[in-house]
Amino acid sequence: MDEGGLIRQLRGRITDPPGVLGIGDDCCVWTPGGPSCLSVDTVVEGRHFLTSDDPAAIGRKAAGAALSDLAAMGARPVGAVVALSCPGHWPAMTIMEGLIRELERHGCPLLGGDTTASSELTISVTVWGERVAGRFLTRAGGRTGDLLVVTGPLGGSFASKRHLRPEPRLQEGQWLAGQPYVHAMMDISDGLAADVRSLATASGCGFLLLPGEVPVHDDVPAMSDTARAACCEGEDFELLLAVDAEHWPNVQLAWPFPKPLSRIGWLLQNPAEVLMEDRNGQVVPFLWQGFAHRS
Amino acid sequence: MDEGGLIRQLRGRITDPPGVLGIGDDCCVWTPGGPSCLSVDTVVEGRHFLTSDDPAAIGRKAAGAALSDLAAMGARPVGAVVALSCPGHWPAMTIMEGLIRELERHGCPLLGGDTTASSELTISVTVWGERVAGRFLTRAGGRTGDLLVVTGPLGGSFASKRHLRPEPRLQEGQWLAGQPYVHAMMDISDGLAADVRSLATASGCGFLLLPGEVPVHDDVPAMSDTARAACCEGEDFELLLAVDAEHWPNVQLAWPFPKPLSRIGWLLQNPAEVLMEDRNGQVVPFLWQGFAHRS
Repeated sequence: MDEGGLIRQLRGRITDPPGVLGIGDDCCVWTPGGPSCLSVDTVVEGRHFLTSDDPAAIGRKAAGAALSDLAAMGARPVGAVVALSCPGHWPAMTIMEGLIRELERHGCPLLGGDTTASSELTISVTVWGERVAGRFLTRAGGRTGDLLVVTGPLGGSFASKRHLRPEPRLQEGQWLAGQPYVHAMMDISDGLAADVRSLATASGCGFLLLPGEVPVHDDVPAMSDTARAACCEGEDFELLLAVDAEHWPNVQLAWPFPKPLSRIGWLLQNPAEVLMEDRNGQVVPFLWQGFAHRS
Repeated sequence: MDEGGLIRQLRGRITDPPGVLGIGDDCCVWTPGGPSCLSVDTVVEGRHFLTSDDPAAIGRKAAGAALSDLAAMGARPVGAVVALSCPGHWPAMTIMEGLIRELERHGCPLLGGDTTASSELTISVTVWGERVAGRFLTRAGGRTGDLLVVTGPLGGSFASKRHLRPEPRLQEGQWLAGQPYVHAMMDISDGLAADVRSLATASGCGFLLLPGEVPVHDDVPAMSDTARAACCEGEDFELLLAVDAEHWPNVQLAWPFPKPLSRIGWLLQNPAEVLMEDRNGQVVPFLWQGFAHRS
């Protein structure tokens, strides 16, 4: 890969926002508008995509997965930088074009990066954002009795290749951060089974999950164990919430987006109570696991 | 690599600064103090370090090289996040310990990151910083007639393994950003021969380099072509400046650091004039190249 040539192409492709110094210096420079949040997300060849996948789609996925972390806080994107480690046989600019288009679709300028040759294609995208609703929503605010809620259907992301076309729920996340009765939020990237544990742990709670209530994505084959697919597969990029039970009807009524919110369980007081309702309506220990990328 | 276990170890190792949300949520959260700058820097196995190098030293290098980009702007570090792509046979926590110690040495908290399994060790460190001196210094401010100046001796970084122990010139950079007669700055990471071209191009100038004036590091063997080693090898992590010629004596007098500044050339009006003085005092086209990592 010719790093100088790639950087020249990128500078020709991109216009910096007013008042911002973008690609080409030792750092990018901008003036934050207030409290800020930042995340980095990496995709690696053979783990998060296949060598046979479309290069532009891989770039799109890298950007979308990173933006999903901003959605999870209720943040508005401000900027992104990318670290591209790229073997010579991959088309670096095609990957970057897919990445830039996904950022642009969400109003997020690419402001810098670093490119290096490597044996394995690895893309790390750092994104930062600012508050829209006066606060960031963390995983840690859930309370005993809060309802567990998801923003859309889950499962089948890998088999259908939907994982290459993430739809970061930025608008939804920003709206939810403005609802005082939404207490905690995160994105569902490791599979609901793993992520519900993370939210409950961060909130100091246990939980009861109702797998029969989890909305199943059309991508999940009807003949399979659909509830398990919805709970245990990864990279759905929907949002998981803890919502005050008393005000749940108000949140549902006010929700302005087409896909309905779904209530899928409750937070429990005792962090050791990690439970699910089985097909017979019996409460049993929750032993299902999320998705772990091959390691 | 057990990502959950590593994150638990890191959370036990690190205390978040007051008012900052660090490792463990979808994003880290902080409140910027004003205009901010950000950079990402990647090191890859076999390119920026050897598989036989000490894991903690590799972590140190990854952090130091990233911090050097903040030094290049005259910035104070505010925070860092790391993307670690790590094969199972590398000791992830030892690498991270080396990285964290280097960040701590420069007052930079580690606030988040992403870890994933991979076949090749790749570490991307994103750092951000704020102004100390009321401005950031870019590469683009150099003017015709400005002196080209370096903050320390160059060369021999790879052969001596000094490249694993970068000393990011953060204090020096912050001081220099406060000097009105310093017009442009960058760090020397790709070799002076490449970086002087970058600074001159960004400033819309040509240059005349005096290789005989470039300070040579003790790591360069005396029997070699020492001027060429100082100009063409990489990863020195010193700073390159453009200084108003008339006020150069004042800058030299006020300079409070032990290693002297060295004047190594001038910026020229015509961007096409890329020149050096050869051993016989003749001005000739400058054809020397910087260091390109194996690709």
